[in-house]
Formats: sequence, C-alpha cells, structure tokens
Amino acid sequence: MKIGFIGLGHMGAPMALNLLKAGHDVHAFDLSADALRALQDAGAQVAASPRDAASGAAFVITMLPAAPHVRSVLAGENGVLAGLGAGATVIDSSTIDPASAQAFGALVREHGGAFVDAPVSGGTGGAAAGTLTFMVGGSDVDFERVKPVLAGMGKNIVHCGATGMGQVAKVCNNLVLGISMAAVSEAMSLGVALGIDPKVLAGIVNTSTGRCWSSDTYNPYPGVIATAPSSRGYSGGFGTDLMLKDLGLANDAAKQARQPVYLGALAQQLYQTMSSRGDGQLDFSAVIRLYQPPTKKDAS
Amino acid sequence: MKIGFIGLGHMGAPMALNLLKAGHDVHAFDLSADALRALQDAGAQVAASPRDAASGAAFVITMLPAAPHVRSVLAGENGVLAGLGAGATVIDSSTIDPASAQAFGALVREHGGAFVDAPVSGGTGGAAAGTLTFMVGGSDVDFERVKPVLAGMGKNIVHCGATGMGQVAKVCNNLVLGISMAAVSEAMSLGVALGIDPKVLAGIVNTSTGRCWSSDTYNPYPGVIATAPSSRGYSGGFGTDLMLKDLGLANDAAKQARQPVYLGALAQQLYQTMSSRGDGQLDFSAVIRLYQPPTKKDAS
Amino acid sequence: MKIGFIGLGHMGAPMALNLLKAGHDVHAFDLSADALRALQDAGAQVAASPRDAASGAAFVITMLPAAPHVRSVLAGENGVLAGLGAGATVIDSSTIDPASAQAFGALVREHGGAFVDAPVSGGTGGAAAGTLTFMVGGSDVDFERVKPVLAGMGKNIVHCGATGMGQVAKVCNNLVLGISMAAVSEAMSLGVALGIDPKVLAGIVNTSTGRCWSSDTYNPYPGVIATAPSSRGYSGGFGTDLMLKDLGLANDAAKQARQPVYLGALAQQLYQTMSSRGDGQLDFSAVIRLYQPPTKKDAS
Amino acid sequence: MKIGFIGLGHMGAPMALNLLKAGHDVHAFDLSADALRALQDAGAQVAASPRDAASGAAFVITMLPAAPHVRSVLAGENGVLAGLGAGATVIDSSTIDPASAQAFGALVREHGGAFVDAPVSGGTGGAAAGTLTFMVGGSDVDFERVKPVLAGMGKNIVHCGATGMGQVAKVCNNLVLGISMAAVSEAMSLGVALGIDPKVLAGIVNTSTGRCWSSDTYNPYPGVIATAPSSRGYSGGFGTDLMLKDLGLANDAAKQARQPVYLGALAQQLYQTMSSRGDGQLDFSAVIRLYQPPTKKDAS
Repeated sequence: MKIGFIGLGHMGAPMALNLLKAGHDVHAFDLSADALRALQDAGAQVAASPRDAASGAAFVITMLPAAPHVRSVLAGENGVLAGLGAGATVIDSSTIDPASAQAFGALVREHGGAFVDAPVSGGTGGAAAGTLTFMVGGSDVDFERVKPVLAGMGKNIVHCGATGMGQVAKVCNNLVLGISMAAVSEAMSLGVALGIDPKVLAGIVNTSTGRCWSSDTYNPYPGVIATAPSSRGYSGGFGTDLMLKDLGLANDAAKQARQPVYLGALAQQLYQTMSSRGDGQLDFSAVIRLYQPPTKKDAS
Repeated sequence: MKIGFIGLGHMGAPMALNLLKAGHDVHAFDLSADALRALQDAGAQVAASPRDAASGAAFVITMLPAAPHVRSVLAGENGVLAGLGAGATVIDSSTIDPASAQAFGALVREHGGAFVDAPVSGGTGGAAAGTLTFMVGGSDVDFERVKPVLAGMGKNIVHCGATGMGQVAKVCNNLVLGISMAAVSEAMSLGVALGIDPKVLAGIVNTSTGRCWSSDTYNPYPGVIATAPSSRGYSGGFGTDLMLKDLGLANDAAKQARQPVYLGALAQQLYQTMSSRGDGQLDFSAVIRLYQPPTKKDAS
Repeated sequence: MKIGFIGLGHMGAPMALNLLKAGHDVHAFDLSADALRALQDAGAQVAASPRDAASGAAFVITMLPAAPHVRSVLAGENGVLAGLGAGATVIDSSTIDPASAQAFGALVREHGGAFVDAPVSGGTGGAAAGTLTFMVGGSDVDFERVKPVLAGMGKNIVHCGATGMGQVAKVCNNLVLGISMAAVSEAMSLGVALGIDPKVLAGIVNTSTGRCWSSDTYNPYPGVIATAPSSRGYSGGFGTDLMLKDLGLANDAAKQARQPVYLGALAQQLYQTMSSRGDGQLDFSAVIRLYQPPTKKDAS
Repeated sequence: MKIGFIGLGHMGAPMALNLLKAGHDVHAFDLSADALRALQDAGAQVAASPRDAASGAAFVITMLPAAPHVRSVLAGENGVLAGLGAGATVIDSSTIDPASAQAFGALVREHGGAFVDAPVSGGTGGAAAGTLTFMVGGSDVDFERVKPVLAGMGKNIVHCGATGMGQVAKVCNNLVLGISMAAVSEAMSLGVALGIDPKVLAGIVNTSTGRCWSSDTYNPYPGVIATAPSSRGYSGGFGTDLMLKDLGLANDAAKQARQPVYLGALAQQLYQTMSSRGDGQLDFSAVIRLYQPPTKKDAS
C-alpha cells in the first residue's frame, strides 16, 4: 500500500522508518536532501513534491512544525491536494491548534479526501521504538481506517472525537503537564530550601495527593530519578521550546474559546523566561532552575 | 498506657476513638463539652485542662486548627508543659508552619520532653477508618517510639526527617495538590469548551503525561468520576478553606525561605476568590467553577 | 482633496464626519448601508467598494476591527490596492498587531503607495470631539504628509518611529493601562475591606508613588470620581472586550518577540473572566468586581 | 518639649536630626552606639533604654524595621510603656501591618497614653530634607496633636482615618507601586524588543492612559530619565528588599481581609526572584532585569 509521508524531522524520520518496516510502500518528501537520502537508503521512494507523494497514495501523513507549514504542504503549489486521489486519507500528526485542524479537515473533504488529526505523545524515543500514542480526531469510519496504519508507528491509538479533538486532547494534556512540572519544581525547591531531603519529599508526594507524572516519573530535581533528564543536566527529553509552543497553542485556543487559563498563562511566561535566557533546548523540566539561586544552578 | 489527647474536632475525635479501640487509656481535653461527652461515652477520661491531660501520660497528642492554638495549649496557663512528665512525648498532628513546629520542638525539649510533628493526610474518612498517613518529623529514636501509637490511627507512618520536616512534607505536597487541581480544572474546562467529551479527555490525560491524582482520582469535572466530590455537588471531601489555609502556609514558608512560588501564589488567590464568594465550605475541587460561566455553574 | 474612508463604526463614523467638516472630499465605504447613509446625509460620497473609495484618492484611511479585516479590505477582491493610485497614502488607524502592520506597509509599497499605521487613543468621545491622539508609525516624509490630514481628527499627532511603531506604542501603553487598572482595583478593594474611606485612599495614592491615570482620572471604585464610568454603573467608556483584545495583541506580540509578560498574561485572564461572565460590554474598570464579593457587587 | 526617639537607622537618624533642628529636646535610643553618638554630637540626649527615652516625654516616636521590634520596644523589659507618662503620645512611623498597629494602639491606650500610626513615604532623601509624607491613623484629636511634631520632619501630613489606617494607606499605595513598576518594566522591555525607541515610548505612555509615577518619574529603563536609579545602575532609591517587605505586608493583610490580590501576589514573586538572586539591595526598579536576556543585563 502506498503511503505518502511529508516531514522527515526528529519525529517524522523514525515514524516513516517504522512504516517501511511494517511493509508499506513509503513515498517521502522533505525539504532536506539529507533527510530524504537517509530514508531512501532504508527503502523509501523519494517524492519530488507533496503532490508527487500524494499521487496514488491511500494515505498521506504529514508531520510538520506548525499550522502554516501544514497549510502550505496541503494547499500550496504542487501540494498534497493537487495530487490526492478520491477516497485517500490525510493524517496530520503535527501538533497544531484545533481550529486549524478543523479547517484543514474541511479543506481535504472539499477535495474528495478524508482527514484525521492525529498528534502524538511519546517523544523521539517513542517514535523510534514505535510506541507512540496517537490522539485521533475524526469520524468513526475514518478512525477505523487509519488505525492499522498508525499501529505501525505507535502502541496506543485513541479516538478522541470528531475532527480537531485529537489536537484538543493533546493541548489539554500538555497544559496540565506544563503547569504540573512547574508546580513540582516549586514544591521541590521550597522543600529542599526548608531542609527536607529531595528523595524523601518526592517519595511522600508520589504516594500522596500531589502524585503526578512530573513528580513520579520525570522529577525535575537532579538525582531523584536516575533516568530523568534532570539527572543528566536536562539533556534529551522534551525541549523547553516545544513546551512553550504547546502552551502557546493552549492559550490561543483558550482565547478563541473565551476561557480563562490563569495558571496556563503564567506557566507560559515561566517557560518563555527559560527560552529567552537561551535555555530553550534544555528539557522542559529545567524550569526548576527559575526557583534556584544562580549559584545552585551553576553547581547542578 | 495513658495518652493525653487535645483537640476533638472533625479529625481529632475519630482519631481519639481509634486510640480507645486500640486499648489505650485516653485522657481527652477540648473546649467543647459536647465533644468531650461523646468521647467520654466511648470510654475516654475527661481531663480538666491540657495540663491535666498531660500529667502522667507517656504521649500527648495535639490536633488543633493553627499554630497559635498549639502554642496556647502547650505553653499557656494550665498547659501541657506544666504537666508533662520527664521523658513523655508530644505528638503534634496539627497542620502548621514548619518554623513553628521547630520552635515547639525546642520548647518541649527544654521542658524535658520529646517532640515530633506528625501532620496527617487522608481526611475525615481516613481518620474514622484509621487509615491516615502520618508525616513525621523528629529524631530516629523519637520516630520509633511514636510509630506504634500512630499505627493505631493510621496506615502509613512516614519518617520525613528532623523536627519540622513532617510539616515541610505536608505543605509541599499540598502545594502541588492545590496547583494541580486548578490546572486540571483549567484543562477540563478548556477541553469541554472546545468540544471534547470530558470522560474521553480525562481518560487520555490519565494515561499520559498530565496524569495526576487531581485528574485520575478526584477529577473536578462533574460526572467523570462517580465517587469524587465533583459528582455530588462538591460536598464532603477536603474543604476549599482548608486548601486555602495550606497554601497560605506554603506561601509563608516560601517567604521565610526566600523562595519564589509563582504558581503557588496564584493558586492561593484562586481559592481565596472561591472562599470570598462564600464557597469556602465546598470541596476544593469546586475551584473549577472559576472557569465556567455562571449559567454552567448554576446547572451543575 | 479626495480621501477614501473605510470602516464607519463607533470610531470611524465620527472620524469621517470630522474630515468632512475639515473640508475634505470624503468617499466612504462600509458593509452597513445604514452607516453609509448617515455619512452620505452629512455630505460624503458613497463608494461601491474599497477599490472605488481608493480610486483617485490622495489618502485612504482604514478603521477596522482586526488585522484580517484590514488584509481583506486592502488585498481582497475590489480592494484598496486594486484602486490605489501611485503616490497615494494608506493610513491604517485600526488597532492591530505590529507585525501585521509591517506586512501591510510592505504590501502597499509594493503597489506603489505609501503607508503609515496610526492607531488612536481617546475613545468615541475623542473621535466625536476631534481630540484623538494618533500614534503614527512610518518614515519622516510619510509622517509629515499625513499629519495635516490627521490633524482634522485629532489633537496629538505623535511620530513613534518606523512602520509598525504606532501599533507598538499603543499596545505597550494599553498593556500598562490594563495592568494598572487591575492593580488599582486590588488596592482599592483591599483598602476598603481593611476599613479606609475610598476617597481618602484615592487621595493619598494620587499624590504619592502609586499615582496613575487608572487611579486619579478613572478610578474603578464607585463614587470616588464623579465623571468616571465606575460612578455610573460602568456604562460607556472603554469596553472590557476592547481591553481584552488589546491585551491579546500585547501577549501575541510578546510571544513573537520572545519576551515574558507575567503581569500582562495574568491581567488578560482577569478581563477574560469578566468577558466570559457576560460583562464584556461594561467599561474595563468593572474588573474591580472580581475583587468584591457578589453581595457587594449587587449593591454597587 | 521632650521627645523620645527610638530607632536611628537610615530613616530614623535624619528624622531625629530634623526634630533637633526644629528646637525639640530629643532623647534618643538605639542598639547601635555609633548611631547614638552621631545624634549626640548633633545635640540629642542619649537614653539608656526605651523606658528612659519615654520618661517625661510628651511624644515618643518609633521608627523600626518590623512589628516584632515595635512590640519589643513598647512592651519589653525597660520598654516605652514602662516609662510613658499619662497623656503622652506614641507615634509609630515604622511600616507594619495594620492589625499590629491597631493592637499597639489598644495597648498604649490601656497604659494611659495616646497612639497614632504614621508611616512615611519619601525615602532617605525625603527624611534628610524634611519633606516626608506622613500617613496618619488615629482620632481627630490625636491627629491635631501630632501634626506640629510631624511637620518638623515632613511636608505632607495626611489624616487617613482611625488607628491603623495610616498603615492601610501605605500598604495599598505600595501595592499599586510594586505592580505598576513591574508593568512598566514589561511594557518598556516589550516595546524595545519590538523596535521602538525607549524615550519615545515613555513619552507616549506618559501623556496617555498608561501614565504613572513608575513611568514618568522613575522609569526603570536606563537612560529614559536621567535622575532615576535606572540611569545610575539601580543604586540608591527604594531597595528591592523593602518593596518585597511591603508587598508581603499587603498580601498578609489581604489574607486577613479575605481579599484576593492576583497581581499583588504575582508581583511579590517577581521581587522575591530578584532578592533570591542577590539583587535585594538594588533599587526596586531593577525588576526590569527579569524581562531582559542576561546579555542585555550585563551590558546595562
């Protein structure tokens, strides 16, 4: 089965490789010749354009940085819509705002195709291991159709509702995540300043009502969890700039929905401060550094 | 073994009852004659004063609203210190600021006694069932000595470090809790406003990186979790005014420790707003109402 | 001199009337036939389209709700650019984000015209009285050219720098305004709750370091300033929804500039809460109601 | 007329000197022998204790760091109350919380004296020049009695209401001040990042609705106002740690009054961050550094 795949970045490249392993006929497109060559070496066909990648494909998967890129790849010159066959399905796995996802869905349907939004969680590790979670927005029929394809790249394929609801699920989850990571950073920094051992404090929180992923799996205090980015200088993991992007999507969606998001708006400023200081490439749990005097930061 | 017990409120009364059930000789004191009578009917001795409750007791347990009450009960006229025998141990299970706990510890030791701070979590349900968690601050020797006594009232007896560290653990846990409940409130309200089904959204968050006790056990959105206060009009549970008190302790401790707590300070204002509106008696998960238009609130 | 004028809303209509009074040949366009008729009765020519309004005009003034409207009026079918003569100048008095203003400037120059952004302050009262302040972004030459035209509608014509800087000035001023109004609301509400007379408190702040327009000219506490909206039930004035829009522009611009705006982001949520409650049409100083218990609000 | 003066710090010493110049018989007390000697050289009598300073004095003025110091000076061993004559008046010019001021007033009255709270604004410059503003809380009779004394040290003597209302006025003014300084810092930093000239931006804000003391008199952006601390490396002026103390008083008072103070709580965290970094001695307008990347900070 021919699958067009557009966007071979840190996430897209390993996802496309897993589709090849699953036996699909992958036609890939990217602006980077290097990225294309690497995939070609693994057995993919190189497409000359998004249109070319889409021609004759049953599915077209897009994995791009932001909504304007998706719009351009779909509707630009030599774009996907120019090549999309009747009945083909576009799967957009980019993380974008729900309203844009809904607009792209309408656009694809106008051109005779089907569309689901299917943003992922699990990071580059999950992309390589094929264990991503896909949060899918689309009709029941479309969900059933894309499920086997996504199963080649991920472990949990969750139907979140109609078009756009995959993005809603992702943006809401990451809103909680961005806030709770900063909350755990405040509490761990405060507790240690008051004299408690950080491992003891984490142990108590993790078995009590403050329990959360940001504390029990990804604790931002160095040394508490050996496998967390905080224990290796905040390298790897989920970058601060990516969290900043997702909180921006959450706050924009809130503005459109006319919903206040007090903590979300404040958390966005915290990650923005990290990014403005030049720490945007660090794992987002480095936000704990905002709560520690410069000398402690230097020593960590 | 004689145990003095001072403070027979919503938490203290069932705790003292469990000590009776465990076979202890409980001498109780409270300002409320009704509370005393109820405990007397269950087999306790009625003490005429904190001093009286402490005289000859191996342990004195205090369960009081705030630090000034503890100070008064310990050091006031006919207070505990006036009756405390050499080698007796004071266990303060009140939730107060760490610095006061440390000051009370020093005071008790000056009078020849031992002291641990041992605030609890688990609520009135846990107090009645004898399944409380005790977060204990004190020396290793003192911890071992109080452990069997606390085991009569709770299930998890955790040693958090030196004097005051029990309070540090509690205040830091509840700082995370107060913030994460508001974070989940923001995300659930936003998601539903954007069109997703609240149970679907909660299901995704609970298996993803936004996972936390506030979402998977105590979700603030009505109907998501049948047993949560949100599904019974926010009655019962952990009151908004109690969360407000604990966030006040966290922010005061942060001020003393010269630590910023951005989200903690903002969360305190959210619960303050609820309390000022007259909703202080509702469960603290009712903070979600701040994110919902009045009409939705009325209908819930 | 022929002037095209597009956008005859609450602000645009009185501005266009003042141009007529100043003796200009105004060709007006709006989607509302009623608005057009009213201006026609005052002596304006009715244009059939933005293109028609622009044809042969020395200046084209746009006064529209948001950037997408400006884009559509300029570059849409039968838009201004289709009719704009060589050397004609577009003056955009809409309040929009600086980046869009800069993009529109580049677009107009590509079509052989000149462009300044010239957002206003002074409200509908200033528009009617011809006493608006214009914050102008554009070259020195363009500023000198538009100055006499703007002088027909305003009193202060300020050159803020290159294209876009008019919008920067407005958005930054309103960022301070939105925050300081909420700050004064907090302080007045707190002071009164602590027992001070609101007029006495305002008098002290107004002669001290807390002095600001939000306190000394537009105090949000009812009865302190007889002419302020707060003394007439928050009617008239500068609507909450308009402040919310401007804070949204400020926060979007901050995101693009990678600048944190802690207080600005929080203030946006406060006005959002007012708007979500259905109070978006009240003067923005009604934000003080967030700091007052419901019963006080009802009584005010 | 004998006046007791207790507390010869940066503010108290020049205030006492002005009382000497006004011809009063000043009996001074301080824990610092150096401070006492300096005042003695200027003509003051040295008191051996607060009690000694108060004995036979018509007025006793206290100028101390915080409420516990005032309590100790008044009610401690050899304290003011032990020496205070019938009908003498205690003037507390310390900045403390309103509730403590009210408690001290009651205490002094119980001992047969009169009491006013009279915190000041104007800084060390105003103390030296004798141009302070006194915000006085007390009865009409007491206000009239203290007015001539205060006139020897200040220019504006304002009656704010009953006991405690002087502190309320000060804390509310400084709440607005602390927030508006951070607001101007956000807006100036944002505007400059977007390309506007800082002097142009300040000029527009200062003649528009964002006008405030923090912008037009004390602008935090270096070089905008030649006489402001920002133009001399944030030296001199009103220290960050003093603003942090006053915001702490505001937030504590708000907690007691059950009033939310969203922006005040957030502003407190901003100054706390500055202080934790070791910048507590800088003028409080240095808070603008939180909005500027490290390299800009180093260059300023």
